[in-house]
Amino acid sequence: MKVYFDNAATTPVAPAVFEAMIPFLRDHFGNPNSMHAHGRESRSAVERARKVVAKLLGAAPSEIIFTSGGTESDNTAIKGAVKAYGLKHIITTAIEHHAVLHTVEELEQEGLISCHFVKLKEHGAVDMDHLQELLKSYGTSALVTLMHGNNEVGNLLDIEKVGHLCKEHGAKFHTDAVQTVGHYPFNLQESNIDFLAASAHKFNGPKGVGVLYIKKDQKIGPFIQGGGQERGMRGGTENVASIVGLAEALSLAHHDMAQDRAHAEQLKSHMINALQQKMDGVTFNGQSGALDQSLYGVLNVCLPSTKDAGMLLFSLDLKGISASGGSACSAGALTGSHVLTAIGVPSDQPSIRFSFGKYNTIEEANYVIEQLMGIL
Amino acid sequence: MKVYFDNAATTPVAPAVFEAMIPFLRDHFGNPNSMHAHGRESRSAVERARKVVAKLLGAAPSEIIFTSGGTESDNTAIKGAVKAYGLKHIITTAIEHHAVLHTVEELEQEGLISCHFVKLKEHGAVDMDHLQELLKSYGTSALVTLMHGNNEVGNLLDIEKVGHLCKEHGAKFHTDAVQTVGHYPFNLQESNIDFLAASAHKFNGPKGVGVLYIKKDQKIGPFIQGGGQERGMRGGTENVASIVGLAEALSLAHHDMAQDRAHAEQLKSHMINALQQKMDGVTFNGQSGALDQSLYGVLNVCLPSTKDAGMLLFSLDLKGISASGGSACSAGALTGSHVLTAIGVPSDQPSIRFSFGKYNTIEEANYVIEQLMGIL
Repeated sequence: MKVYFDNAATTPVAPAVFEAMIPFLRDHFGNPNSMHAHGRESRSAVERARKVVAKLLGAAPSEIIFTSGGTESDNTAIKGAVKAYGLKHIITTAIEHHAVLHTVEELEQEGLISCHFVKLKEHGAVDMDHLQELLKSYGTSALVTLMHGNNEVGNLLDIEKVGHLCKEHGAKFHTDAVQTVGHYPFNLQESNIDFLAASAHKFNGPKGVGVLYIKKDQKIGPFIQGGGQERGMRGGTENVASIVGLAEALSLAHHDMAQDRAHAEQLKSHMINALQQKMDGVTFNGQSGALDQSLYGVLNVCLPSTKDAGMLLFSLDLKGISASGGSACSAGALTGSHVLTAIGVPSDQPSIRFSFGKYNTIEEANYVIEQLMGIL
Repeated sequence: MKVYFDNAATTPVAPAVFEAMIPFLRDHFGNPNSMHAHGRESRSAVERARKVVAKLLGAAPSEIIFTSGGTESDNTAIKGAVKAYGLKHIITTAIEHHAVLHTVEELEQEGLISCHFVKLKEHGAVDMDHLQELLKSYGTSALVTLMHGNNEVGNLLDIEKVGHLCKEHGAKFHTDAVQTVGHYPFNLQESNIDFLAASAHKFNGPKGVGVLYIKKDQKIGPFIQGGGQERGMRGGTENVASIVGLAEALSLAHHDMAQDRAHAEQLKSHMINALQQKMDGVTFNGQSGALDQSLYGVLNVCLPSTKDAGMLLFSLDLKGISASGGSACSAGALTGSHVLTAIGVPSDQPSIRFSFGKYNTIEEANYVIEQLMGIL
């Protein structure tokens, strides 16, 4: 049996998404910036996709920029906001994705900003009181960048509350929503989120394409300089087929959202219950053990220490099970997780992230539990 | 009849390229950074692609970085070199692609560099004597960025000579080779090119994927910060399907290079001869009228002034002919071409760029000439 329980790393492209992309990989190839018939065909596909994405996220089409993925979106928003507004402070946490952390580190090394880490409470929850203190100190010259759903331990952030605090203190608010767009509803026009990053391949769309939402009143410059595409916000010929695929994937994700969520929650609950019943000393990292506080697709399991702990992922792999030791969105995933370290997970016990998607089944969950029992 | 004579803007994806991409859009979806079977499958596809591209360009696999396209590659090389080496001068021309010009402008506005434009000779040829003068003044603290083949007027640069001059004067050399990779042979290990940018969709590959060549001895940092992908040189999950498509497209382009070139040259010569014979006062912009000095796929025609000059592209479009007024790689292509302006093309005469690809036919060329005669 082959089991893919690593949907937080990437997801399979939905068949309908692939179908939607085909015409733009085969027949309609014009450059959307060309004025002729071939170009207009591509232009209208891109703008249709933008309208679809905007509507689903509760945004205006002019607030949606297509990028090469979540990482580029994060870089664009963070560097763009610091530059455009001369911001001197970035407020973040130690458990952000590297697309955010390394960008912030670069800005700090360049002497452009000071970085302030919000304290984390038990299980890595953001300490809202400390956030408020930091906002009181640095508010109007700060960018707050906090991820919506943590890719490793699943912690969900109350972005409405953070947005409200940021607005109150005059700070800009960016959120990496790569794990939540396509999985949770959004109504960005009602939010106080200024910048939001998303990536198609996390919701059964293609790799290499993402979204950056920039609130109407925010004026930042482009990160990639070039031919003035995306209304001057992103140089480079638009990736038409993938943009069409992204919009189709987001439509599908929203159409099936309730049912996909119920399905993944069922798998997650089943895994939690089975592991707790069958294995002594199992705990769940971060907030991932609490259904109402974490991504419904992510379960990060801390297993009892065994002599073969280091080999656990390899042993699962040999059984046909694909899971992750930490974040797989990083080259060399076995170098240790900065997230697990930051939230104080014991490093002498093996931790495994199982992440569920719409194509997983309860039989797969049972197989994984069975194999895990056999190995330990 | 529908005629696509705008291959310098973008090219159709070759059927074999689409076929090569399908498995990675449908079946093999793993994140190449995951250690499990699903991930390894994608990783090996990406590394196979890197080897193919490296071999075809005469480079080592470690010198090849996959990006989201030529524009990102240009941004990465230019900003990366200036930052890594603390360069204070950029030597370029006024007829570069906006991916280069706007990047250089940004660096100059930030006070990081001074920009020096190499004088252009008749028809926009780079004045090598002036380049040498500039190199004498700024050599060891300069980056030279000169495009290999001009996308609008087709001018070809002697990059071996420029590379030699740069090396002699201790300058770094970057070339935007977006119009030439896949169309001309390269042997980068024998060259003095430090950085080279290419884009798949200019050689019948997919949009949204490109290459940045970085010579072994050059140590620059990443432009997009993230999970350390591409050996730390480019954050963001690799666009596996498109990377596979890029490698397939480059293989195909190299396999068919002689024959595709002969075919395009035949079309170009035919157009040149027919236009000269049938139309008084036709000239060719830049060096595009000289086969040995210009891209074999690009012919930029300056037509006699007529009262309907402004409508010419629209009239051709109505006849099913897709051509370009200048560069189509820029949003709002009708805002006037900075290249034609810089080389002194009269603005009261209509200029049209015809650019030929492997799927064009002599019948199409005849149809275009016929329609053009009818309109003028």
